[in-house]
Amino acid sequence: MPTSIESLTAEIRAFRDARDWRQFHNPKELAVAITAEAGELLQHFVWQSPEQSDQRVADRRDELASEMADIAILLFELADNCEVSLPEAIRRKLARNEARYPVAKARGSNKKYNEL
Amino acid sequence: MPTSIESLTAEIRAFRDARDWRQFHNPKELAVAITAEAGELLQHFVWQSPEQSDQRVADRRDELASEMADIAILLFELADNCEVSLPEAIRRKLARNEARYPVAKARGSNKKYNEL
Amino acid sequence: MPTSIESLTAEIRAFRDARDWRQFHNPKELAVAITAEAGELLQHFVWQSPEQSDQRVADRRDELASEMADIAILLFELADNCEVSLPEAIRRKLARNEARYPVAKARGSNKKYNEL
Amino acid sequence: MPTSIESLTAEIRAFRDARDWRQFHNPKELAVAITAEAGELLQHFVWQSPEQSDQRVADRRDELASEMADIAILLFELADNCEVSLPEAIRRKLARNEARYPVAKARGSNKKYNEL
Repeated sequence: MPTSIESLTAEIRAFRDARDWRQFHNPKELAVAITAEAGELLQHFVWQSPEQSDQRVADRRDELASEMADIAILLFELADNCEVSLPEAIRRKLARNEARYPVAKARGSNKKYNEL
Repeated sequence: MPTSIESLTAEIRAFRDARDWRQFHNPKELAVAITAEAGELLQHFVWQSPEQSDQRVADRRDELASEMADIAILLFELADNCEVSLPEAIRRKLARNEARYPVAKARGSNKKYNEL
Repeated sequence: MPTSIESLTAEIRAFRDARDWRQFHNPKELAVAITAEAGELLQHFVWQSPEQSDQRVADRRDELASEMADIAILLFELADNCEVSLPEAIRRKLARNEARYPVAKARGSNKKYNEL
Repeated sequence: MPTSIESLTAEIRAFRDARDWRQFHNPKELAVAITAEAGELLQHFVWQSPEQSDQRVADRRDELASEMADIAILLFELADNCEVSLPEAIRRKLARNEARYPVAKARGSNKKYNEL
């Protein structure tokens, strides 16, 4: 059964409020925590070749899943605290990227939209 | 109507595959991109006091929503490519945090679990 | 006796070349490593109040010094590999900041130059 | 003529104090700013192949030098504020890495010391 961002966000909010942590979780602190967790995820891949990276994923899937969960939890809470609908923001961004990266021009290219 | 991570991930995958971008999106590159986007989010709050940060959120909600969407899109794709169920990983992490941060000890404290 | 960036860079280069690591240290990989190390430094301060951060510095000075050294070593090597003179780049940036942040306007303010 | 970290740090301190910015530059805020600037540096290389990264360095050397300077300025100030001697910390780290990565074992390998 698919899991909605909204229901996970409600679980995250309940966890936080049971601990009275809203006071520490202002947008800046959440952005700091997200960046620090992204750094932990990145740490796994430093100096690794693409082949070694794939092997790392195979060897440490649970650990990597745990880093991804950390980022997601903080990001869902940040959106919620900022009164941002993350699903809507994602769909708006995908629509913008459709316009910026038309299939005919972007297919098979790793260039930025302003260099296509 | 709630939006599932699974359906958003399917949209992200379709967007990517229409452009034949899977070849560029190995786990390392996605982790690099996530960290760079987290840095862009953080950039908004550098040197800002908590009050200024709240004001910034009010003034630039759409811009911040767009940064959050960038991170979410890359994170959902990374989980998908690594065959990680993000909803499951989030619930596992919340369960672990329940054990690490029992309400009686963690309430109102910003200490790490190993310092509680 | 003061230590020059140039002499430290020469030591870093000698360390690297004795191990034949130049092949792994292209600019992108060095930027990835710098960001991951910056994330480790930041990790020390996540959720911490300013007072707790000061205490952390007092308690863990050696550990923090080690994180700073990691960033500096990678940054000095990156500049060297890119044929950038870091001392010159620093002085150019300070001169630009002198122009962007005139003392009369910037004194006691944490605003960005384009908001002063 | 070589440039010492100590003299650059004195220039950075003078710049800051003329603007009365010490009040904003506690260790946490400096770590936040360093990570955000590292993210800007990394942004240049997102999705780029090693060949494209080298080309980028050739095309945008001044811009990259400016990002490196931003990180260095903040790092030198952070070390100074924390009463850390950055040259000493760098030399201690190089000595530790000599022990962790003996030439005979580490030559030509990108493995971490605990995996050598």
